[in-house]
Amino acid sequence: MHHPQAASRKSVAQNAVETLARLRARRPRVHCITNTVAQNFTANALLAAGCVPSMTLSIEEVGSFVSGAQALLVNLGTFDKERREAVTIAVESARSSALPWVLDPVFVDRAPTRAAFARELIGRRPTVIRLNHAEFSTLASSRASRDAVMAYARASQTVVGLSGESDLVSDGERTVSVANGHPLMTRVTAMGCAGSALVGACLAIEPDALVAAAAALLIINVAGELAAEKSAGPGSFAASIIDALYNLDGPTLIARAKER
Amino acid sequence: MHHPQAASRKSVAQNAVETLARLRARRPRVHCITNTVAQNFTANALLAAGCVPSMTLSIEEVGSFVSGAQALLVNLGTFDKERREAVTIAVESARSSALPWVLDPVFVDRAPTRAAFARELIGRRPTVIRLNHAEFSTLASSRASRDAVMAYARASQTVVGLSGESDLVSDGERTVSVANGHPLMTRVTAMGCAGSALVGACLAIEPDALVAAAAALLIINVAGELAAEKSAGPGSFAASIIDALYNLDGPTLIARAKER
Amino acid sequence: MHHPQAASRKSVAQNAVETLARLRARRPRVHCITNTVAQNFTANALLAAGCVPSMTLSIEEVGSFVSGAQALLVNLGTFDKERREAVTIAVESARSSALPWVLDPVFVDRAPTRAAFARELIGRRPTVIRLNHAEFSTLASSRASRDAVMAYARASQTVVGLSGESDLVSDGERTVSVANGHPLMTRVTAMGCAGSALVGACLAIEPDALVAAAAALLIINVAGELAAEKSAGPGSFAASIIDALYNLDGPTLIARAKER
Repeated sequence: MHHPQAASRKSVAQNAVETLARLRARRPRVHCITNTVAQNFTANALLAAGCVPSMTLSIEEVGSFVSGAQALLVNLGTFDKERREAVTIAVESARSSALPWVLDPVFVDRAPTRAAFARELIGRRPTVIRLNHAEFSTLASSRASRDAVMAYARASQTVVGLSGESDLVSDGERTVSVANGHPLMTRVTAMGCAGSALVGACLAIEPDALVAAAAALLIINVAGELAAEKSAGPGSFAASIIDALYNLDGPTLIARAKER
Repeated sequence: MHHPQAASRKSVAQNAVETLARLRARRPRVHCITNTVAQNFTANALLAAGCVPSMTLSIEEVGSFVSGAQALLVNLGTFDKERREAVTIAVESARSSALPWVLDPVFVDRAPTRAAFARELIGRRPTVIRLNHAEFSTLASSRASRDAVMAYARASQTVVGLSGESDLVSDGERTVSVANGHPLMTRVTAMGCAGSALVGACLAIEPDALVAAAAALLIINVAGELAAEKSAGPGSFAASIIDALYNLDGPTLIARAKER
Repeated sequence: MHHPQAASRKSVAQNAVETLARLRARRPRVHCITNTVAQNFTANALLAAGCVPSMTLSIEEVGSFVSGAQALLVNLGTFDKERREAVTIAVESARSSALPWVLDPVFVDRAPTRAAFARELIGRRPTVIRLNHAEFSTLASSRASRDAVMAYARASQTVVGLSGESDLVSDGERTVSVANGHPLMTRVTAMGCAGSALVGACLAIEPDALVAAAAALLIINVAGELAAEKSAGPGSFAASIIDALYNLDGPTLIARAKER
């Protein structure tokens, strides 16, 4: 229906190469409202990619941190009352500073209150929503397919990044798909959260949200493939993927990308 | 007094082999109320062993998460008000869904308020209490010995898993002891918490709580021995033990187990 | 102006060797009020150096934990309301038990409310303030130089440990400078927090706060150099520096120290 390269004149891989170079040159600040399980790994993934993470959840501070950042991540994992308030302030701050923001509706399939809060946030139009199949089904009330993702992106007026065996990114008009990654990525906690944070980082330096989201997902998935080759299991893999994000170069991205 | 293999017709090691195989086949969901220091390592240990961890502490969500899980871990480290409320809801949810739950009364020897809360929870009958010598002494008002552990398990109508140079597991009638593990395990934070989470995971797929607890402790201790052989210190050890949990096989468990 | 070795009759390196030996022999308890991003890495750094960390933030428990410890760390990252209350209680408990305490005013340059809280705490006279150049500029309203650091230490009646390409430690009268470390240390989150925690640990066993702070910074920076030689990027580096802290010996400290 859509030619993968309709996303732009360039391939996802070429865009990712340029995005990564800009990340490292500009070192954007990314404020992350994320769960305590994921904070350390997410911060290290952003640092490895050349960015400057901040993580405060304090309702008194979060507005200042967000308005001094170049992008915002909102991850719904392990939510408490204060974090919910912090999200509201942070999203308001991002909107009034015209910053891009990413929503990662972790585990909305597990608790109706969380799904309700995610829907409320989606109404405030995140630049990108990054989620997995179970989370998509809960929010879109439909199984994840290329058409369903496009329809949901169009209805929500956002870019949707769906993770799975192949990743699918759509803005409702254009859709790209990349089949990189490694099964060990599902065996390390916070891998999806780190991917969403990287989407935020790419949005900070790339105005086309579809291009930014696809670049981020390709970058982390190729890093995962490289890390798997040097790992003895998920423990060494978690360290190796951080090393791989730090060392990743353009030719490797081009050579490894499996666009569909 | 008790023959170690009275726990069941099988040895602890044989039971552990079967328990590990079932963990990997059934991939139980384990909800963990645990401290923020331990969350990441605990989640990764559960993922490495084949389980699906969740970690929310939100009082609005925790009931749904627990009732959708197969076991619950309650760890008392770094407690704040909201987490205390979350525990009450989570334990109620576990009880009404007839789920097994593990209590890890971390550092009850350091603050009387924490010890009081632990005693209140023990009154609600955790399936297993896993603790170290200092914690046992505080709660049982007696030094940890084989007899004291049996007496305490009987009085509390629960299974007690005591960690130390040898681990001791007793339900008040049967007692088993396993002398595996490595000193580096005491040099990595959250190692005990991860062990308790693994007890929860094993309870999800093994109805005999004594068998499940002994299997979990043997599994993590043998993983610790394997990891120590590949480590240059506690940093590489923390990654290696996750790799070892992921790669552990039955023959290694049988060959390494030191039952007493 | 000041001869580096005026800090004591011994060199920073010789003092660090003795401090490290005492840390490992006495295993001080260090209570850490630190952000959730840094808790796990900080605990593992302290354990690797031979100390016993605790981390609770509960306002009901923190007083007991601090009065049972030998030093306190207060790190301002990711602050919420309860943590702010916990700090007040913890500092009061440290003062009434005459315990040394370290303040790490993380990111005070990012939010005015955080800077205000840091100033309030500095008024309660931390034994050591450890911070970076941006944080120093915010609090001292002046760029960080040797003279500015001395003046600020004198005015605040505390020891200041400034991290940067060279670390500078001053009590207002004496100043020492050590130029160890590695750029990868800036690519791992919580590295500064772990350094501050190590300052706390050294204060627990060394009454001269200047000597303790300089020893701690030398120890972690030399560990960073050793770790960098064995790392493929920031992921493996984060594990290697923990290994290096565990394995560090006196002759290596002496051979590597670059005092100025």
